[in-house]
Amino acid sequence: MRIVVPERATGRLTDAWRACVGTGRFELGLRRDYQESLALVQRDIGFRHIRGHGLFSDGTGVYRPYEYQGSCRVRHAFTYVDQVIDAYLALGVRPFLELGFMPAALASGDQTVFWWRGNVTPPKSWTEWADLVRATLRHFVDRYGLDEVRTWPIEVWNEPNLTHFWQNADQDAYHRLYEVTAHAVKEVDAALQVGGPAISPGSDEWLMPFAEFVTARSVPVDFVSRHAYTSGPAQHVPFGTHQTLVPASSLLDQFASPRRHLRGSALAELPVHITEFNSSYRPDNRVHDTAFNAAYLAPVVAAGGDLVDSFSYWTFSDMFEEEGVPTSLFHGGFGLLTHRQIKKPTYHLYAFMARLGDEVLARGADHLVTRDATGRVAVLAWAPVDATGDTPGQERHTVRLSLPVGTAAAGAAFLLRSSVNEEEGNAWTAWCEMGRPASPTAGQLDNLRETAEPARRHARLPIEGGRIELDLHLSRHEVTLVELTAVADETPPWWDDDRLLGRTPGERAA
Amino acid sequence: MRIVVPERATGRLTDAWRACVGTGRFELGLRRDYQESLALVQRDIGFRHIRGHGLFSDGTGVYRPYEYQGSCRVRHAFTYVDQVIDAYLALGVRPFLELGFMPAALASGDQTVFWWRGNVTPPKSWTEWADLVRATLRHFVDRYGLDEVRTWPIEVWNEPNLTHFWQNADQDAYHRLYEVTAHAVKEVDAALQVGGPAISPGSDEWLMPFAEFVTARSVPVDFVSRHAYTSGPAQHVPFGTHQTLVPASSLLDQFASPRRHLRGSALAELPVHITEFNSSYRPDNRVHDTAFNAAYLAPVVAAGGDLVDSFSYWTFSDMFEEEGVPTSLFHGGFGLLTHRQIKKPTYHLYAFMARLGDEVLARGADHLVTRDATGRVAVLAWAPVDATGDTPGQERHTVRLSLPVGTAAAGAAFLLRSSVNEEEGNAWTAWCEMGRPASPTAGQLDNLRETAEPARRHARLPIEGGRIELDLHLSRHEVTLVELTAVADETPPWWDDDRLLGRTPGERAA
Amino acid sequence: MRIVVPERATGRLTDAWRACVGTGRFELGLRRDYQESLALVQRDIGFRHIRGHGLFSDGTGVYRPYEYQGSCRVRHAFTYVDQVIDAYLALGVRPFLELGFMPAALASGDQTVFWWRGNVTPPKSWTEWADLVRATLRHFVDRYGLDEVRTWPIEVWNEPNLTHFWQNADQDAYHRLYEVTAHAVKEVDAALQVGGPAISPGSDEWLMPFAEFVTARSVPVDFVSRHAYTSGPAQHVPFGTHQTLVPASSLLDQFASPRRHLRGSALAELPVHITEFNSSYRPDNRVHDTAFNAAYLAPVVAAGGDLVDSFSYWTFSDMFEEEGVPTSLFHGGFGLLTHRQIKKPTYHLYAFMARLGDEVLARGADHLVTRDATGRVAVLAWAPVDATGDTPGQERHTVRLSLPVGTAAAGAAFLLRSSVNEEEGNAWTAWCEMGRPASPTAGQLDNLRETAEPARRHARLPIEGGRIELDLHLSRHEVTLVELTAVADETPPWWDDDRLLGRTPGERAA
Amino acid sequence: MRIVVPERATGRLTDAWRACVGTGRFELGLRRDYQESLALVQRDIGFRHIRGHGLFSDGTGVYRPYEYQGSCRVRHAFTYVDQVIDAYLALGVRPFLELGFMPAALASGDQTVFWWRGNVTPPKSWTEWADLVRATLRHFVDRYGLDEVRTWPIEVWNEPNLTHFWQNADQDAYHRLYEVTAHAVKEVDAALQVGGPAISPGSDEWLMPFAEFVTARSVPVDFVSRHAYTSGPAQHVPFGTHQTLVPASSLLDQFASPRRHLRGSALAELPVHITEFNSSYRPDNRVHDTAFNAAYLAPVVAAGGDLVDSFSYWTFSDMFEEEGVPTSLFHGGFGLLTHRQIKKPTYHLYAFMARLGDEVLARGADHLVTRDATGRVAVLAWAPVDATGDTPGQERHTVRLSLPVGTAAAGAAFLLRSSVNEEEGNAWTAWCEMGRPASPTAGQLDNLRETAEPARRHARLPIEGGRIELDLHLSRHEVTLVELTAVADETPPWWDDDRLLGRTPGERAA
Repeated sequence: MRIVVPERATGRLTDAWRACVGTGRFELGLRRDYQESLALVQRDIGFRHIRGHGLFSDGTGVYRPYEYQGSCRVRHAFTYVDQVIDAYLALGVRPFLELGFMPAALASGDQTVFWWRGNVTPPKSWTEWADLVRATLRHFVDRYGLDEVRTWPIEVWNEPNLTHFWQNADQDAYHRLYEVTAHAVKEVDAALQVGGPAISPGSDEWLMPFAEFVTARSVPVDFVSRHAYTSGPAQHVPFGTHQTLVPASSLLDQFASPRRHLRGSALAELPVHITEFNSSYRPDNRVHDTAFNAAYLAPVVAAGGDLVDSFSYWTFSDMFEEEGVPTSLFHGGFGLLTHRQIKKPTYHLYAFMARLGDEVLARGADHLVTRDATGRVAVLAWAPVDATGDTPGQERHTVRLSLPVGTAAAGAAFLLRSSVNEEEGNAWTAWCEMGRPASPTAGQLDNLRETAEPARRHARLPIEGGRIELDLHLSRHEVTLVELTAVADETPPWWDDDRLLGRTPGERAA
Repeated sequence: MRIVVPERATGRLTDAWRACVGTGRFELGLRRDYQESLALVQRDIGFRHIRGHGLFSDGTGVYRPYEYQGSCRVRHAFTYVDQVIDAYLALGVRPFLELGFMPAALASGDQTVFWWRGNVTPPKSWTEWADLVRATLRHFVDRYGLDEVRTWPIEVWNEPNLTHFWQNADQDAYHRLYEVTAHAVKEVDAALQVGGPAISPGSDEWLMPFAEFVTARSVPVDFVSRHAYTSGPAQHVPFGTHQTLVPASSLLDQFASPRRHLRGSALAELPVHITEFNSSYRPDNRVHDTAFNAAYLAPVVAAGGDLVDSFSYWTFSDMFEEEGVPTSLFHGGFGLLTHRQIKKPTYHLYAFMARLGDEVLARGADHLVTRDATGRVAVLAWAPVDATGDTPGQERHTVRLSLPVGTAAAGAAFLLRSSVNEEEGNAWTAWCEMGRPASPTAGQLDNLRETAEPARRHARLPIEGGRIELDLHLSRHEVTLVELTAVADETPPWWDDDRLLGRTPGERAA
Repeated sequence: MRIVVPERATGRLTDAWRACVGTGRFELGLRRDYQESLALVQRDIGFRHIRGHGLFSDGTGVYRPYEYQGSCRVRHAFTYVDQVIDAYLALGVRPFLELGFMPAALASGDQTVFWWRGNVTPPKSWTEWADLVRATLRHFVDRYGLDEVRTWPIEVWNEPNLTHFWQNADQDAYHRLYEVTAHAVKEVDAALQVGGPAISPGSDEWLMPFAEFVTARSVPVDFVSRHAYTSGPAQHVPFGTHQTLVPASSLLDQFASPRRHLRGSALAELPVHITEFNSSYRPDNRVHDTAFNAAYLAPVVAAGGDLVDSFSYWTFSDMFEEEGVPTSLFHGGFGLLTHRQIKKPTYHLYAFMARLGDEVLARGADHLVTRDATGRVAVLAWAPVDATGDTPGQERHTVRLSLPVGTAAAGAAFLLRSSVNEEEGNAWTAWCEMGRPASPTAGQLDNLRETAEPARRHARLPIEGGRIELDLHLSRHEVTLVELTAVADETPPWWDDDRLLGRTPGERAA
Repeated sequence: MRIVVPERATGRLTDAWRACVGTGRFELGLRRDYQESLALVQRDIGFRHIRGHGLFSDGTGVYRPYEYQGSCRVRHAFTYVDQVIDAYLALGVRPFLELGFMPAALASGDQTVFWWRGNVTPPKSWTEWADLVRATLRHFVDRYGLDEVRTWPIEVWNEPNLTHFWQNADQDAYHRLYEVTAHAVKEVDAALQVGGPAISPGSDEWLMPFAEFVTARSVPVDFVSRHAYTSGPAQHVPFGTHQTLVPASSLLDQFASPRRHLRGSALAELPVHITEFNSSYRPDNRVHDTAFNAAYLAPVVAAGGDLVDSFSYWTFSDMFEEEGVPTSLFHGGFGLLTHRQIKKPTYHLYAFMARLGDEVLARGADHLVTRDATGRVAVLAWAPVDATGDTPGQERHTVRLSLPVGTAAAGAAFLLRSSVNEEEGNAWTAWCEMGRPASPTAGQLDNLRETAEPARRHARLPIEGGRIELDLHLSRHEVTLVELTAVADETPPWWDDDRLLGRTPGERAA
């Protein structure tokens, strides 16, 4: 059954898929590997915003109480924060601010989360918290300009519905935090965008109370945020975790859920940001390093933009550290890249997305067909996966398309195909074959970079009646990008391949 | 028939293959594309010397006569020469000086060669020529130090046996030029290395008279030089040439011929430098752009070092211009790279050579097996070609090897294979498929760079009894590099691939 | 007498001063030194357009006639032209196209200009010339887009009023060339901007006939262009030239002359582009290397924008070659930079201009006072020069200003002063002191780069009543930039400089 | 009184002054600002080794105990350590290893030092500590090669004589630590260099017992180490410290003290490394940011190499964090550079040292005169300072020298002088004048980089009788470098400065 792709666009591909990407805690942005990885990501993908935890945690040193002449005072210091944001902007990506966690000196308790000890308790002084928020945003406005900062969404806290991210997962306390914070933000400038409640999956029952709270008390809210993951409980092994996964379609369901739950509320029409998503929520699950992950997420990345305003892959780099310093190059981190800029298959899924056109010609369970302004047709296709792990997944999968390429008069197209699967574009597989070296040598790192590049195939295909019939064979866990451009042939009349080695024209035929 | 490669080295791979590379005329070294291409080449290949024409031609502006107070004087100016040599040294490559051609103002006639008009007549004043040589070498010694300049071979003129390179191909006049020049060189420093006669193929009858001349007159000579090409007469088409080729083994014969011809002479034991070689001697023969060229030359590059002290691929880059400005990106230039740093298949032949070890374990008609100090075994293999062009060449070729890898105790090896053939690592084929765009767009250039990279395949192979049995299948015109490293397995005991998707260990078996 | 600078802006500083800069012939744009110099220039100055000769000369290889199947045909090749324009756009500067000179194969005669032999005769076929123009512009539109190419002014030929630039300085022939060319341009796109007559100084009598010709025959013309220089006849010495200069005010007169001469004509309201200007028109006059040149041109660069739409400094770099390869690092080239990116004083004049604000507060014979959107006040001041050379010029010159800085409440300003004069920011003087080495060593080049940087002085000045009284002392041939910013003092209350070395506060007083 | 500097060398300048430099804790080496600063330092100064704390602290994640199958095991992980050392070696600097502090999981107590909590208690298992040391060094040998690692000195712990660096400052416990560690090191390779006791100033009474202990128990020791500082007790202000200083000569006394104290012991002849020195030992004392610091330390850096094998400036960069995240760009950090690669005056002291020759011609209280192989004479001179702070220090200081430059025949010298003082090359002063902005804007950072460059002055001086009489005037806290090179004059005979503006030769005279 060949799918006949129509010639007219059926829709547009928004850039929600690249509206945001996740990052490890704020001050990791000072690192060189981090910045070089981000530079690669921006060159090949080009995210608009970046979001991570820890803006106010102690590693950034923003909140600095001190004593002078017998009284307690506070200095707000942006030494590192500026260095990170300066680097972001220089790399063409903007902050999606997450206000949290609590500076130890302002915290009401000492509960922390992660190896790097983010304090997750409410402030001991709401006034000082509001001062901190205002001072921070005023500093940003002073340094980067109001026009710039108005483009940075501001989210209040992270997953307050979980006890390890917010003391006792206290909903009322979160509402209070939200209220104080949102007002503080708007005092700096009424056009700054603030939102929440940044909840984790499985707690949509927080949404309607949040809507009711802000409505009842006229608290400003410009967007609604939620996270999405599909993994089950963690089965720990040393320095790692295994988890079951539900099918990837659950992610799209989760993307849709805030609008569904808020139907009828005052927040029903607000933008929805999925401020984190991935398969597993664990930074030590090897699934992130695999081609499976890319093929599993491909339909989500291809379609998520129909449901929400952004959905932020958690995260762009393995320079991360929530579970401490990794003990091995590949370690199941969330990153599109692991350390030393080694690309994972999911990196290429995003890089392929970045080469799609913005006219959507067709969508299907295993493909997305687009065209850009120059007429180039780009097909993203992926192999179906078995998320249960009961089977290794299909060995072969075929997508049959009839594609409109060029004008009726065009005679041929140039095809470039880029593929990532269990073997190709897969540094993880190569690393496993190498014996999983924890600290690869310089030579091994070079080899990993070579094996991490997608396989490229090319051909010249005849266009007949303005169409190309394409049978795309995909191997296990493959994600592939096919780009087709009608050929403007410049071959001169005297060209004769047969003469390459000096034979008289027509000699071979004779 | 499997070839059993012995475990003990049978020889060493000298670096004669990378002792020198050719370049377009001297002042092209000022260009950015040239320097960026050379930087790539040096990173991936690492030549020791670089040789080209035109040191004294008008484009470098070295010889500058002027009048002052009624008398004629000469200034020797090194403004551009220094810029080029500074760049060479910064890129880790040294000049192999060719003294020529004649500055127009010092020439006795106005015969020129090439689009860029190199004057090929004797000097009108031998004194001024000797002054020019001395001034140039003294300047180099002043600027770069005597120890450095002593490592730069100095060749006198280029192909004086051809009438278009040396007026009338006058052998006596060349001998005089050589004598005057060699003495001028040695006056600067007796340890500078000077040589000739830099003859083209097919004129070995010049060698013995040259030996007799220098012996009879006690003229210093430190090395003997000759060129080697295998192409027949040029069949011109617009902006291009076709030529027949003789088998590549002729190149090795040509390499060997100076020693053969000089047997018994005083020059018999001198170093021999093949200061130019390639398949075709034309800068507009598309054969240079193809995988055929790489496969054709592979046995030459692999074995030439047994015969001579250097053999210099003519040339590293298509930034060249002997036939004028190319009218198209690919145009049959000599370069390992064409403009804009697009790699050709022969580039990869050299890059593969650079990854061989220096112990030779085996050599054959279609392979070379080496090992390096870390124990890594590297196999360079190539498909046989049909140089007549009567057939397209074999579609498949197989090399069967039994390779010693690791110790007897080693359990497995990591294999990385890099391939270049009619499809893979072949920007030329992709460019033909694109419709041969003369001026590719930015997007097409990106695609060409992607298709120019070798295909990479990897696997883990069992080592049995310290050996791996390897069947290497090569496609048409393929050159392939296989690297094998015994695996030091760091896989922890708890690793279980079956658990990747969270299943209970052993579940699938049940 | 102190000049009281008003607080309100009296005008705006247009960017006509950086609307265009000159360059050596087209294919020099392929060189690395050229591109690195242009990168520096764009970082520190930021020109909008760049204009030079030789787009159609043989070094770019655009016009390529050939024979095929018995007939003569032409290929238009853009191999190098694309490389250069790609580089320009990547560096943020756009071509100001000059159509010329004549390809040798299309020329009606063999008269050439310059060492690089630009052919200056009319085409032997007006049809082929028109084809060449159309093909070139169509190629640009295809490659860069119509929106982009519409921003590139297109000038027809260069200085046709001089016999060495246009055979016989034949005015009718130029009018014909202009007519054919302008129509060819507009056939590609009616919104492309075409203009002329690109005359040299002293030939304004060409303007009105040009206006009459285009009016009478309805030939399109979008702008008028002229050159401006102030030097007298060349007195040659070996590798150099001396010339007298008239006062710099002549340049401003020359800028104004096209509008004056065209008053009443149909071209009276057209944009005027001074497509070349400098003190001397010779590329071997050392005056270009000096601080004198910067001080001499300062009033012109500061005020020229009031008179014309652009005035293009001829040229940005000494990588130039009209008189052949320079025999010495400094050689009197036009460049803002000489080879190896050594900055000349005039470079800094432009870099200082780039730091001015766009509100003009005051203008005078020796100063220009501006303010930018942040409130920073920037003063460009220069010492008067004696263009006759009869005196060495004043040793000291003082500019006394009362400047409005900050609000009335502001207490102090930070002053940063950058100076270039006979000693400071003056690599030329240092090079003379070094003994004028033709080919400086690496160490000397480092020293020259160090001495080429402006002297920087800084201070904190009290603001009284919103004003700073500034006495600016300038030494001979000085150009200086003073930047004043009101201090937002963040000094904490506990700061006490006296305690730096650990003394008890107030101890020294006691 | 003019000092007549002899023509013959009186000694050699060893490179002890650049043998080592200090750094903040190990994993800060992952940061971009850190690496870019180190790249600058290596380009301008070129240290041989780099030493800091924290190799084994939790931020590097080396020591990783875990449970598997019911038993406790340990993994040694080098993920970050390799990234840092790879970067060091790529930048041309080698580790000077300091083994410490204690991984929390291996510690016997929970006492920590610094904001980043380095654990300073003995190991709870000596076996595991020895394992950790061996595993680390074996890993280094595997990765970098034995020849390389043998050049890395290995120091055992840091300042064990202070209770905040070593629990209870327990001398016996340190001796045990040293013994266990030194043996572990030598088990990996007998030629690795190990040493201690890394004591702080004022505890030389630890030296002889250390010597007796290692002698009595035949513990290997390859070098002796000590620190040197001259500051008194800390007087705290918010985010800062003031301290008195003793005269800088005390540093030289301290350098000499290990040899003095160990006279007669078995360690008497061992190399002595001063593994930390500076004026103040506090990372928040603004004295480090000043020209005072450079002038104060100049005689120490100039002479220290006569006393010890290395003396390591503590530290190269303000990316440091012992007292937490700095609240301001300038904050009194130890660095030669503060954040964002802003150079401090002491940076230039070192950069000036790097331009000295290796022949010492003269030494004095305020100068050091050297000559290099090319004949260039370089004078480092400095103004005397008042370390008490009772006076601001002399406003002017003059050094009068008679210097041998060039041969007797030489006619002139080129002088290049580079100066740093209270105004010049002093970003700190500029920053104070700016109002001490905690987070300078991009424009302010540019201005600070400009003001941080030394003032450069140049002149041509006559050589008479092979000598130049030089009166060097220094302003307050100035450190200056004067470089003198005999001029090889290439001025052509027709050069006439008087003709620059086109006057007839000799006209002005008339």
